[in-house]
Amino acid sequence: MRKTAEFLKENDNYLILTHRRPDGDTCGSAAALCVALREMGKRAFLAENEDITKKLAPYVSGLSAPDGFTPDKIIAVDIADEKLFLKSCERFRGKVDLCIDHHPTNTRYAKELLLRDEEAAVGVVIYDLAKELGVTLPLRFYESVYLAVSTDTGCFKYANTTPKAHETAAACMAAGVDFHRINTAFFIAKTGARIRLERELFDKMIISADGRICGTVITRDLIDEIHADNDDLDNLSSLLMQLESAFCGVLLTENKQRGEFKVSVRTRAPVSASRICAAFGGGGHDRAAGANISGEPHACLEKFMKEAEKEVLCTTGS
Amino acid sequence: MRKTAEFLKENDNYLILTHRRPDGDTCGSAAALCVALREMGKRAFLAENEDITKKLAPYVSGLSAPDGFTPDKIIAVDIADEKLFLKSCERFRGKVDLCIDHHPTNTRYAKELLLRDEEAAVGVVIYDLAKELGVTLPLRFYESVYLAVSTDTGCFKYANTTPKAHETAAACMAAGVDFHRINTAFFIAKTGARIRLERELFDKMIISADGRICGTVITRDLIDEIHADNDDLDNLSSLLMQLESAFCGVLLTENKQRGEFKVSVRTRAPVSASRICAAFGGGGHDRAAGANISGEPHACLEKFMKEAEKEVLCTTGS
Repeated sequence: MRKTAEFLKENDNYLILTHRRPDGDTCGSAAALCVALREMGKRAFLAENEDITKKLAPYVSGLSAPDGFTPDKIIAVDIADEKLFLKSCERFRGKVDLCIDHHPTNTRYAKELLLRDEEAAVGVVIYDLAKELGVTLPLRFYESVYLAVSTDTGCFKYANTTPKAHETAAACMAAGVDFHRINTAFFIAKTGARIRLERELFDKMIISADGRICGTVITRDLIDEIHADNDDLDNLSSLLMQLESAFCGVLLTENKQRGEFKVSVRTRAPVSASRICAAFGGGGHDRAAGANISGEPHACLEKFMKEAEKEVLCTTGS
Repeated sequence: MRKTAEFLKENDNYLILTHRRPDGDTCGSAAALCVALREMGKRAFLAENEDITKKLAPYVSGLSAPDGFTPDKIIAVDIADEKLFLKSCERFRGKVDLCIDHHPTNTRYAKELLLRDEEAAVGVVIYDLAKELGVTLPLRFYESVYLAVSTDTGCFKYANTTPKAHETAAACMAAGVDFHRINTAFFIAKTGARIRLERELFDKMIISADGRICGTVITRDLIDEIHADNDDLDNLSSLLMQLESAFCGVLLTENKQRGEFKVSVRTRAPVSASRICAAFGGGGHDRAAGANISGEPHACLEKFMKEAEKEVLCTTGS
């Protein structure tokens, strides 16, 4: 931590990278770091994230690098692997000077790595780092940190939540963050399209293995019909795990290319999502993994659920 | 606070009352207080709550007063008004020695009142009180406090969440509370009946005032058909506020007595839920209030939505 603070004090002209399919932690942490560096009198920018969603856009607005900016130092936040670099940032492979992360799977691609895998979010690491830097921090810093921490813990609901995540949130709230506006946008408010998607998810849900596996296909026709965007589609698969009997949720979302599906698998221990997805050339974590598959929607879902059934019966007993 | 601590030290043989239609705050706060008093060597019991739900029952188990227990002192927790006493506790009207509460609407019915309306949950007040008492606290105390704080803040999502609510949660987690088990039970896992209720809620939803008011009736026939219990019905009204345009959600739930409805109103500022409910003899907070009404289901909903419309148009503009 002290070494990282020294690095940030000694250098200048920073470009901060966020990961593809960005979430609140990568955007919030990057924005918080950028704001803190600027308070130190440094030039700091975010690399423009072409995957940014409407909901996250306000949190990175005004921080993007201008055309022609040549950074001295490249910093990656919340990026475990260079494979997660944006298309527009492929050119920075092998060139990251500092990576700040909390994923135990970090591939150590950066020259310097500040890895705190005990923290629920990189936002907490940035908060600690800013204290180490001893700089006065504006409200936007605290807003960005709150966004990072709340979104990465499912608003303090998930198993990864720590006492320190709560304490960091308390500090942000005490600094004046309008936390309820953030919570409303990310955890309460739903567009009409999102509500419709959730209904379809449960209306079309197929259940197998005595309620232990739930699967649904969301077709592109439906997405187009209800004008759902990427924010609306975000994290839908976790809803399949709400059924209290569920050990495994399988969601197929049809790509713009009809007949091709992005598959998102969520599980409860001891069922492994990455083992199920590996059978289709995909991968990920134990609790969340993904793959791609193509063909007729319900045949695809059936194939995936068959594979899930093997894993579920083998790990939870038939 | 000090005066309350003195009262608890000086007396003995406590009976602790929880409110009708109990929630996590009244049960968690009562259990935490009971456990803390016992650690002080006092005799303390909870009055049996005949409305207890399956999900809350484990948190009060083993604490109920035995037959023939004659209390010296009666304590009410999280009970703003004697009208909220359980049927089985009607006999304690006018006899409460101490009330610990956080509702600004507390009617001051008790001989002594510890009112902290700046706290998100009574659980936070009990936590402070236990520190004042200086007693060593067992894990069950912290579990009860976590339950109280997390449920009353919607898992730290609602506007009533405070830095202190987060700090109290952090202390409970540091003491070893299995917070994820509690969060899963109250905020993640859903029964098949609950999922069905949520679908019906949105399927039958009536919208008025340009999407600012959403209302639904859940009939007893539906509840019986899908075998929904009180846990399944808990906090359904907050879902109506998910629609991003919503300022007011009105949920009518038919009682066992057909044609009688419990009304639950949720709002976003500046719309006042308690003002709407007051027109029907009910009351509560600005953001959440309740009332009773009887008649034909849709006529009742319409009456309530008319009243809501007056409040919404008057506060958010027509």
